[in-house]
Amino acid sequence: MENSSPSANPNHGFQRNEMKWSPSEKSIARKVFDRALQREFAAIMEKVKQRATRLKAPSELWELERYLTKSRKEIDATYDYRYSMLPIVFGRLVREDRISIDELQGLSAEKLDYVRGVAELGKRWR
Amino acid sequence: MENSSPSANPNHGFQRNEMKWSPSEKSIARKVFDRALQREFAAIMEKVKQRATRLKAPSELWELERYLTKSRKEIDATYDYRYSMLPIVFGRLVREDRISIDELQGLSAEKLDYVRGVAELGKRWR
Repeated sequence: MENSSPSANPNHGFQRNEMKWSPSEKSIARKVFDRALQREFAAIMEKVKQRATRLKAPSELWELERYLTKSRKEIDATYDYRYSMLPIVFGRLVREDRISIDELQGLSAEKLDYVRGVAELGKRWR
Repeated sequence: MENSSPSANPNHGFQRNEMKWSPSEKSIARKVFDRALQREFAAIMEKVKQRATRLKAPSELWELERYLTKSRKEIDATYDYRYSMLPIVFGRLVREDRISIDELQGLSAEKLDYVRGVAELGKRWR
């Protein structure tokens, strides 16, 4: 009996690791990755500035600390620039509306499919 | 042979624990303690607002996080409102110029001596 769920497909990770990245694909990936990360930093900075302006109670200082710690951990966990990880990273970023699939135009159909798959799969994790 | 160093005096902690706090002393202690803590919070908030306004590089976000964590830990370690600890707490605050000994007027001579002793002793720790 065949099991077609992606998480149960033993070839899934193997296919991703086997993907070859052409120089132009690497260049696209780098740009999209850096742009998403910059947007993320800009959003956090904006939020920190807003929160800092409105600081009144001491407890809000520690809420700000927790927000920063959480943001740092999420960024560390999300932004992994190994080529073997990029299809998953991009899938997650598409899923979270941090990038659009259109920004990845120029990647091979195989990679775009994988990214879309992860983005769809993510909906089930949430 | 007598050892007169405060840290080697086995009665030192005992004397402090034996101190009795009158209602008026408790009221003075509470006010001075709260005022020092409020000043501390106000100083941290001011610094956070300044830093937030000047945020440019992402790395500054994590510097701000570290500053908040350090501030929180220092406050937790310093502000201990057990009566047995207050002479040490006030001594440290005097040593660090966070309160003046004058603010403690109304405490018994014995307590003020102890506070001055800790404030002096602190100079050797630094």
